[in-house]
This record gives sequence, structure tokens and C-alpha cells, in this order.
Amino acid sequence: MYAIVAESADQLLWQEVPDVVPELGEVLIKVSAAGVNRADLLQAAGNYPPPAGASDILGLEVSGVVAAVGGGVTEWKVGQEVCALLAGGGYAEYVAVPAGQVMPLPPGVGLHDAAALPEVACTVWSNLVMTAHLAPGEFLLVHGGASGIGTHAIQVARALGNRIAVTAGSRAKLGLCAELGAEILISYRDEDFVERVREATGGIGANVILDIMGAAYLDRNLDALALDGRLVIIGMQGGVKGELNIGKLIGKRLRVIGTALRGRHVGGAHGKSTIVDAVVASVWPMIGDGLVRPIVGARYPIEQAADAHRALATGDAYGKVLLTVSE
Amino acid sequence: MYAIVAESADQLLWQEVPDVVPELGEVLIKVSAAGVNRADLLQAAGNYPPPAGASDILGLEVSGVVAAVGGGVTEWKVGQEVCALLAGGGYAEYVAVPAGQVMPLPPGVGLHDAAALPEVACTVWSNLVMTAHLAPGEFLLVHGGASGIGTHAIQVARALGNRIAVTAGSRAKLGLCAELGAEILISYRDEDFVERVREATGGIGANVILDIMGAAYLDRNLDALALDGRLVIIGMQGGVKGELNIGKLIGKRLRVIGTALRGRHVGGAHGKSTIVDAVVASVWPMIGDGLVRPIVGARYPIEQAADAHRALATGDAYGKVLLTVSE
Repeated sequence: MYAIVAESADQLLWQEVPDVVPELGEVLIKVSAAGVNRADLLQAAGNYPPPAGASDILGLEVSGVVAAVGGGVTEWKVGQEVCALLAGGGYAEYVAVPAGQVMPLPPGVGLHDAAALPEVACTVWSNLVMTAHLAPGEFLLVHGGASGIGTHAIQVARALGNRIAVTAGSRAKLGLCAELGAEILISYRDEDFVERVREATGGIGANVILDIMGAAYLDRNLDALALDGRLVIIGMQGGVKGELNIGKLIGKRLRVIGTALRGRHVGGAHGKSTIVDAVVASVWPMIGDGLVRPIVGARYPIEQAADAHRALATGDAYGKVLLTVSE
Repeated sequence: MYAIVAESADQLLWQEVPDVVPELGEVLIKVSAAGVNRADLLQAAGNYPPPAGASDILGLEVSGVVAAVGGGVTEWKVGQEVCALLAGGGYAEYVAVPAGQVMPLPPGVGLHDAAALPEVACTVWSNLVMTAHLAPGEFLLVHGGASGIGTHAIQVARALGNRIAVTAGSRAKLGLCAELGAEILISYRDEDFVERVREATGGIGANVILDIMGAAYLDRNLDALALDGRLVIIGMQGGVKGELNIGKLIGKRLRVIGTALRGRHVGGAHGKSTIVDAVVASVWPMIGDGLVRPIVGARYPIEQAADAHRALATGDAYGKVLLTVSE
């Protein structure tokens, strides 16, 4: 089969590699489209080795058609259209994935667009609902509102009945966030998000913050949180080490939570299957009801994966960037 | 009535002050004994102003006898022996407290000893169980194992079916922790708690850490935690500002949680009444079953409150330090 071989961050070559075969409990998917994630950029640059046992091929999510099933798999049939959350291996003609990480296409979503959903849906649902316990009526601040995660988080939180503030770097991106349901639009280049959030909440602050900046925003995120607030950090685009003011943490009874999807096991209470099941049960109906839709900012043929990575790296892209593997 | 008036950290004077009267929904308690807490030392030194609406008299917990009830209080009767969690006012002949913060004496505990329980029981239960969701079989590390909080946490966690490691500063203190049910005894002066916890858990780490050191232990606490671990910080004896390594946080999916009891409201999901109810329902039966008992390290007459404060400040005391107000 063919797959992307990452010679370096800029050298992503579509070339022949050994075929994959589904092991016991796995589903083999003929890939239609693959989503691009920041973890793929880090891995291509040599900064994010795949977890033990995972494919060393890039790609953390795909849509496609079931081509074969391994032993013990009864819930998926050859020929079904599906999408899947992967530990790796999605930038390829075929990928093998544990059956528990495969999902049906959401109602009304086309085969290729469905590749835009597994990572954002599992990340947003596991963090906002399963980890931060975002309750209806609470106030949510999403940093990077126009990103893949951000555009999905806005829609889901809106469907759950939350007020939403977002930060983004351009008027066009903030416009997209508004269209998806964000109420407070904060231009991080020339506005103070702490001040804007306080102003919008009568001084109370945000109940939950979904953060991708890490160290750079740590202290100001604490300032922007309400009593009993939860800061969920899923990215470190603003650095790894930041000063934590424990006085603020105790004074407002705050929680700082770091999470990641990729290193999780398949099974168990914290496992990917549990998250995938919750997403299919809760987010897929929101899509069926027209409350949530995939937001695709750009598509590239798989041979141009390096261009797709650049589009994400420069910050020019909004929503998800997809790679088309087969028609 | 008489109460302690804090002229300074060292000048705690037992003198006449205006009588307190129970407001609507409050219970007036004739105080038998009052527990000493670190927050009282901070407040006496001028570093911890009482929350809005609270008494400016020291004292966050008492035992005693109901002397009167305010309007609307039906669950408590004059003459009942009780203990109570306070927002302040316990270093006095009488204290008025919302009915929802009053508890019956636990089975088999004497009237004076019961003053050793409200703060530790509410702090430990709310943090370990309600906040950190400590599950049976998980590994708990308690810093300051011989303190009031520590000695109670060991017993409760042991009753819940957890393995427990503690840090303490002397062999005598570690001996007390062992007697109460701690398995891994770490002398923090000459041992590395990260190494000892890893060794005791086959390299896995602690699932929950109850910390009183704040900044000084922050990074090492992250190192000592297992995947999906929870660090609950309830004290800052080692400083307020520490470097948080967000890479470690995300890599192990950790939670850093700051909490405090005093500033909580009476009602609501996060309120004191909810915690008090849970303690009476869950911890009082453990006491009745002989699994948990009050640990009183020293008693002083209320007129010697300054000596009691010094005993806590020097670190010589173990368990709870109590003030006897009336026989």
C-alpha cells in the first residue's frame, strides 16, 4: 500500500510501504480522507514519538470504508462507511484500528467530511463534559476559537446551553466563531481576555476554559476563572513551564487539568472506546439535529500533505484541514 | 460573654465582648472546646481576614451544647450536645452558626474530643472523596501525615480501602502514622518522597496526593503522581508561586486542584451543608465502627490560646490541638 513517509517536517513523501493487516479485534479501513492535527506536525518534526505499539505513520483520524475485519469483530461489516479515532497510521491507503475506536458516519455527513470529526468530537466531549463537567448555563472560554477544536467546541457548548467567549487572531476568524454561536469575541492581539470575560460575566469569570496556549496564558487563565472554575489545557503553543499562583488556585478553588487523547488505552473508564461511545451517543444526535456540523477550512490531496501541514502551522487555516486519500 | 481578642499573633486575650445572638436559621452553641487551625494562626497574625459576614473572632470549629435556636430552626433543640464547622467565632463562650453546619456528636466520642473533628472530617471528605474521587484500592500520598488533617486522612483512606504513604519530620510522628494505618513512612528530611512512592507502587505512582506544602513540592508532586493522578493542594506552607510543568500535566493527564473550606457558602452543591451532611452520613459511621477516632495531641485552657498557637506553629504538635472553653 501507499502511505506518507515523514523524512522531515517538510518532506512528507507518498510512497510504498508494507501492507497493514487487521489483528484480533481490529477493523481495516480503506481511507477516504484523513484529518490533520497539530500532533502530526510535531511528530513529523521528530518532537512527538508515537505511543508504544502505535503505527509510526502520521494520521490520528480518518473516514473511509471497512475493507476487512480481524478476529472477534462482529459490530462492523465490510463495505460500511465509517470514521475512526486512531493512535496513528491515518496518512495511508489503509489503516487498522481497534473496533472500539470506529464510529458510524454521523447523520447527514458525507464520507470525506466525516474525517473532520473524530479528533475534535472526542477531544471536546471528553474534556468539556467528561472531564470539566461543563453544566448548562455555565460560561465557557475557548482559546483559538477558529481552530478545529475551537469551532467544534463552540457548537457543542452552544447545543448544551452555554454562553461562550472565544479568542482568535483575526476579524474573519472571530466572524466564523460568531456564526457558530460564540457570543463574546476577543481579538487576542489587541484585547485583554481577562477583562473581556469579567465584563461579560458581571465580574464572576468563566466556569470552564479550554486552553491550547499552556504556560503563556496560565496565570491570566486563573484570573479569568470564576469560583470553582476548571482550566483544561490541551496544548502548549505558548510554552511548557509557567508560574502557578497557588494562592489564586486555593482562593477560588480552581482546577488545572492537563489532558491528551492519544496516549489513552482503548478500554477502561478513561479509554478511547468509552469516549467514542459517548460521542456517538451524544454528539452524533446534535449533528443529526443540525446543531453541530464539521467545519472544513481546507482540503489537499494526500500527496500534498506538506502543504496541508504548512497551512496549519502558519495559523492561516480555520476549522479542520483534510487530506483526500481516495475518491 | 467572653472571647479571645487577637491583639497580635502573640497577644490572644480572653476578655469581655458583646454577646452573640442566633439569627434566623442559626443555632447558638455554648462552647465546650474549640479546635485550633492554621488559619487561626494566620488570622491572628493579620494575614487571613475572615470572609465577608463572618465573625472576626478566631475559631473555625467547636463542640458544645445548644443554648438557643434562631427562627426557622427545627432540627436542633436546646440542650443537645453537638459539634460544628464555623466561618469564625469559635474561641468564645458562645458562637452562632447556621443550622446546616451543626452535627450530632459522632458515636462514642466525648463532648470535648468532638471539637477535634469538624475541620479535619469536612476537609478530608470533601477533598479526597467529593473532589479527588479517591477510589478503593488507589494509592494515596499524604504530606504532613501526623498533622490533624493527616492523621484523619490516613484513617479515612484506610477505612475506604486505600494504600497510604505519608511524609513527616520525625520518627515519633511516622510511628503514629503507622499505627493509624499508613503503610509507606517517608522521613521528608532525609528521603525523597518521589522515589519512595515509585518504589512502593512498582513505578506507577500515587493516584491522589493531599498536599499542604504548595510551591515547594509542586513539581515533585507531579513526578510522584500516576497517570490520571490528582494533586489536591490545601496549604501553602512551602510557598505560593511554583513552576508548573504543563508537559508533565498533559503527559500524565494530571489535575492540580486548590481548595479551601472556609470561603464556601452554607448551601449549594459546593456548600458547607452538603459537605457536613456527607460527613455525618459517611465518616460518623466509620467512627462508630472504631475505624476512625479523633487524634488530640494537646489541650490548653482557652486563656492559654497563645501557647496553643505556638504548639501548632513550631510543628511540635501532632494531631489536633484543642482549647477547653468550659467543662
